[in-house]
Amino acid sequence: MRLVVIGGIAAGMSAAARARRLDASAEIVVCEKGQQVSLGACGLPYFAEGLVRDWRELVAYDAAYLRRERAIDVRENAEVIAVHHARRSVALASGEELRYDKLILATGALPVRDGIAGVEDARVFSMHSLGEAIRLRGHLDRASAGKALVVGGGYMGLEGAEALRVRGWQVDLAHAGDHLLRRGDAWLTARLDKHLERCRVRVRHRTRIGVIPDPYDLILLATGLRPNVALAEGVGARLGLTGAIEATDRMETSVAGIYAAGDCAEAPHLVTGRPAWLPLGTTANKMGRVAGAAAVGGRERFHGIVGTAIVRVCGLGVAVTGLAPEQARREGFQPVEARIEAAERARYFGGRQTAVQLVADRASGRLLGGVVLGDHGVEGRINTIATALTRRMAVDEFAQLDLAYAPPFSTVWDPVLIAAQQLLKAL
Amino acid sequence: MRLVVIGGIAAGMSAAARARRLDASAEIVVCEKGQQVSLGACGLPYFAEGLVRDWRELVAYDAAYLRRERAIDVRENAEVIAVHHARRSVALASGEELRYDKLILATGALPVRDGIAGVEDARVFSMHSLGEAIRLRGHLDRASAGKALVVGGGYMGLEGAEALRVRGWQVDLAHAGDHLLRRGDAWLTARLDKHLERCRVRVRHRTRIGVIPDPYDLILLATGLRPNVALAEGVGARLGLTGAIEATDRMETSVAGIYAAGDCAEAPHLVTGRPAWLPLGTTANKMGRVAGAAAVGGRERFHGIVGTAIVRVCGLGVAVTGLAPEQARREGFQPVEARIEAAERARYFGGRQTAVQLVADRASGRLLGGVVLGDHGVEGRINTIATALTRRMAVDEFAQLDLAYAPPFSTVWDPVLIAAQQLLKAL
Repeated sequence: MRLVVIGGIAAGMSAAARARRLDASAEIVVCEKGQQVSLGACGLPYFAEGLVRDWRELVAYDAAYLRRERAIDVRENAEVIAVHHARRSVALASGEELRYDKLILATGALPVRDGIAGVEDARVFSMHSLGEAIRLRGHLDRASAGKALVVGGGYMGLEGAEALRVRGWQVDLAHAGDHLLRRGDAWLTARLDKHLERCRVRVRHRTRIGVIPDPYDLILLATGLRPNVALAEGVGARLGLTGAIEATDRMETSVAGIYAAGDCAEAPHLVTGRPAWLPLGTTANKMGRVAGAAAVGGRERFHGIVGTAIVRVCGLGVAVTGLAPEQARREGFQPVEARIEAAERARYFGGRQTAVQLVADRASGRLLGGVVLGDHGVEGRINTIATALTRRMAVDEFAQLDLAYAPPFSTVWDPVLIAAQQLLKAL
Repeated sequence: MRLVVIGGIAAGMSAAARARRLDASAEIVVCEKGQQVSLGACGLPYFAEGLVRDWRELVAYDAAYLRRERAIDVRENAEVIAVHHARRSVALASGEELRYDKLILATGALPVRDGIAGVEDARVFSMHSLGEAIRLRGHLDRASAGKALVVGGGYMGLEGAEALRVRGWQVDLAHAGDHLLRRGDAWLTARLDKHLERCRVRVRHRTRIGVIPDPYDLILLATGLRPNVALAEGVGARLGLTGAIEATDRMETSVAGIYAAGDCAEAPHLVTGRPAWLPLGTTANKMGRVAGAAAVGGRERFHGIVGTAIVRVCGLGVAVTGLAPEQARREGFQPVEARIEAAERARYFGGRQTAVQLVADRASGRLLGGVVLGDHGVEGRINTIATALTRRMAVDEFAQLDLAYAPPFSTVWDPVLIAAQQLLKAL
């Protein structure tokens, strides 16, 4: 049995590793078009900034290790340009053909740059690939800090703005939409605007960049992603309404024997009950694991996502899960919202204010989503909400969760419980 | 309508405040035997230690404020010595009688000191009440650091050991049982032993103190609690098998019109499905809120607990929820256990090791409990497990939770998910 995996980052390497663990004898080949497999790509902003000194610190396992210790035939700089499913083979850019019995598409996502003229300008950078991050880091190390424009108000744009501020650059951030983090949440955007202003990042909403503008020394493109589905389309695998590849709960595409995982694939959203496309490393790893198991006959299944994400924005932790009020409305819910601010732990332990937003459905009383902003405990609070969303918990049940309390860690009513009580009043 | 609440700390004040909010006209009297209502008693170890300079910082609302702003007739140093339910009145130690229509027992817990001779010795201290904590703090401020013995291996004992170490005392800790934190968990006890040794606290297990021993300059008693049920028994309210007061999900006792909340009452344990007695401030507040609502005709109900608790032990965060393996066995489950150590976030963000234990039932695949130990993120991880326990989540579902990841906050597979994967292999 020969398994070919196209893509060697999060989903691809998880798939290959899982397949190997469940099947010691399968022949496993991973084709990565970039220069490095098994890269922790979420760390690239911190490499660009300089906190991570050497990008090799972001590599979990190198190709030599994977070949030697895991017997995975890892190929770097190996771009697959076509899949010929009739004869079960993939064609590499080098001209080589590789036969497969099972195929996993972990082709990831591509940066959206359509419509921006002048992106070849030497002042233009991005952090999508390792090569681009290395180029940016080199520039930041050499050039003196000047005036930078970040294009894009998603995670990568905000992380990029932080990285540039850390390096002493003046930063403007422009994005086409009304709301930051693509969440359609006016409250969240207003909070972030205020925070970014304090960090001296000037935000311009509803600002579409058509041409790379003159008055900047550096332009960082973070204009968003689209699923990389060219190979999937070529082989006739069905795409969903999201534009990403449709897959079963075992990550099999509409073409038997071909699996899809990671940023190229859709995931069931457990709050809406419909497929969603939220390209994130954690989800990619989980999908990859299931695809790798399925390809060698394992019975694992992928449960889905609730839309959890977290980002540090100039020192502030910003975490989201589930649906924003506007998204909830579009999904047919009757969203009711509560927002509170409270101390995240006892003041004598340095507790500072944290902000929590919770969204629920008026008709059913179900919790639909949440946002947590703060210095400390942000990830734990959003995870508590995410776990409740996974099980479609109602707000009244959530409001009584038996959460941990001692003064060094929290307050006797945790801020998420205070928000839930507030929300109960509004329901 | 006159509501009398006996006890003015966590459960009592929550009950009074909730009743007032739902019923503007009810006459509400709170009788507190101690010198201060609305005290954040969980902060007493940090007051003794000196981190909290003045105990008044632990008071949420003082009696004058509660009388003036909430129209709650708060009485301090007002001990109720009997309840005469036939004539709906309580007798105070002062000789006064107070009539009631509804009564809430929030009488708390009492320290267990039976069997120890010599507790009146001037070297003997405790932190159970404000008065005792003030006496200890005064002593620590005046006396030079010497040799201390902490008696008891529960939360209060460990917090007391930390407080004394902070003040430069040599500390031995003796307790009668085999396991620390009363969890019956050999792994947890071994980890804590090692940590306490590093912090130079000498632990002696299976050491029952019969007489206050000589070679110590200070003895801190933290030998545990028992529910204070004397008034409940006097009025014929049924006690449960735990020894605490039985109550409905609206916190009503077996005597109509009398409610019980806080450390004197049982709570349904959502993992075992049976009543449990785990006296903690968070639970007391939740119960009190429900009792206060019920007493004025509100329809709120108390859902129950999953046994979550957290404590800082000489700098280490230690959190538990649900059942330990041995407890699970006694409850009729077939416990299977996994323990892992992993980085709590990216190493380049200073991520250090955190340890996670998860327990599941072999027959059903259900998650039954967990322990988290570490420097950072401990409260968030235990809360994620607690939320899953509340909904009786199976390990395979837990292992795929959509938890937040970015390098400043976690690792791509959160430690609790790594533990769940490990547990799946063992199931």
